[in-house]
Amino acid sequence: MTSQPLPRALPVTDRTRHRRLREQGSVERADLEAILDAGFVCHLGVVVDGRPVVLPTVYGRDEHRLYLHGSVASRSLAADTAVCVTVTHVDGLVLARSVFEHGVNYRSAVIHGTARKVTDPDEKLEGLRLLTEHSAPGQWSYARRPDRRELAATTLLAVSLYEASVKIRTGAPDDGDGPDAERGLWAGVLPLTQAWGVPVPDPALRPGTAVPEHIARRAGTRQG
Amino acid sequence: MTSQPLPRALPVTDRTRHRRLREQGSVERADLEAILDAGFVCHLGVVVDGRPVVLPTVYGRDEHRLYLHGSVASRSLAADTAVCVTVTHVDGLVLARSVFEHGVNYRSAVIHGTARKVTDPDEKLEGLRLLTEHSAPGQWSYARRPDRRELAATTLLAVSLYEASVKIRTGAPDDGDGPDAERGLWAGVLPLTQAWGVPVPDPALRPGTAVPEHIARRAGTRQG
Repeated sequence: MTSQPLPRALPVTDRTRHRRLREQGSVERADLEAILDAGFVCHLGVVVDGRPVVLPTVYGRDEHRLYLHGSVASRSLAADTAVCVTVTHVDGLVLARSVFEHGVNYRSAVIHGTARKVTDPDEKLEGLRLLTEHSAPGQWSYARRPDRRELAATTLLAVSLYEASVKIRTGAPDDGDGPDAERGLWAGVLPLTQAWGVPVPDPALRPGTAVPEHIARRAGTRQG
Repeated sequence: MTSQPLPRALPVTDRTRHRRLREQGSVERADLEAILDAGFVCHLGVVVDGRPVVLPTVYGRDEHRLYLHGSVASRSLAADTAVCVTVTHVDGLVLARSVFEHGVNYRSAVIHGTARKVTDPDEKLEGLRLLTEHSAPGQWSYARRPDRRELAATTLLAVSLYEASVKIRTGAPDDGDGPDAERGLWAGVLPLTQAWGVPVPDPALRPGTAVPEHIARRAGTRQG
């Protein structure tokens, strides 16, 4: 599954061209990668009987492709299937002087591609490693890895990162220099942040089982 | 736009029937409403040229329907269009003894319906009020409301809440009573929470403009 490096500028296609609010679009692959690396749950869109279905699932990635846990959509994925994978981080509410200028500070990546069911055992194991390490770094070495039966029972999908659309909105409302600024209303951003909490042990744990360092050190850190 | 109250048990249809991990499915409309009320950004799925497109957008609701900011998808929505609207809250990582049992604690609502473009000015204003108050309670009274031109420039979509699928996973990993429990590994949940930060004033604000109480009181409160 090796291939040439993907272009560092995202391709502009009919699906990814920024039609609206151009200032929010990015064509930098580095922005795409940063958005993907800041999260671990995506929304996977497929077409079932001509209708859209959007389901959350976990993902990981390498330089070329996403790996998705595909069990949620396995009944919809007979062969190679057109998919749209979207990852969104909500960073804050944009509170303007006018309701019309209200909005959201966010970062989103929308990947258009075809989901390939991973069948090669080596690629499947490597895809699951990437997926596991993406959400829970350190767990691939710590927990028991999948055996042959578990590997067979897991649906893993691969989607190329070639075609993607990135949007980022940051900063203050847009009506600070318009007539509404004269109203004297407060305006700004109410930030929203996600953070990891203190690990909650499984009640079934043997008393005294220590939280491993790779888990403990995430408590209190920001996510997203 | 009034109608009979929706049934308090969600309808079981081909699209909403829980096929997998039944224990995570809920057919309670109260669970659907709680998930919707805990968020304000959804993922809207539509079919464009036979392919899925999934875009984040903001929403509000009343008892019967969602109202979505539809500008993101307006080029795809000529007439009444099949949509899937998904709202997901990620509550934590489930760290099991085996990689296979790793997972996510989450709450998700998946709404299947048809997006109607709202054209009646009264319904549009009411829909925008619901949408604004859903994400930013108090702003409809505080900020300047949309004028006729702004109302015309806004694409608002309505989607019935009739057909929806709800999944909720909470609690510890599932391998606490299996053979892997003998390994002596730590297992449990790493919680993930979202919270509002301290309001960041627009640099264009007149110095000394006070943060209104309805915004200030959200700082530090949990979201999701």
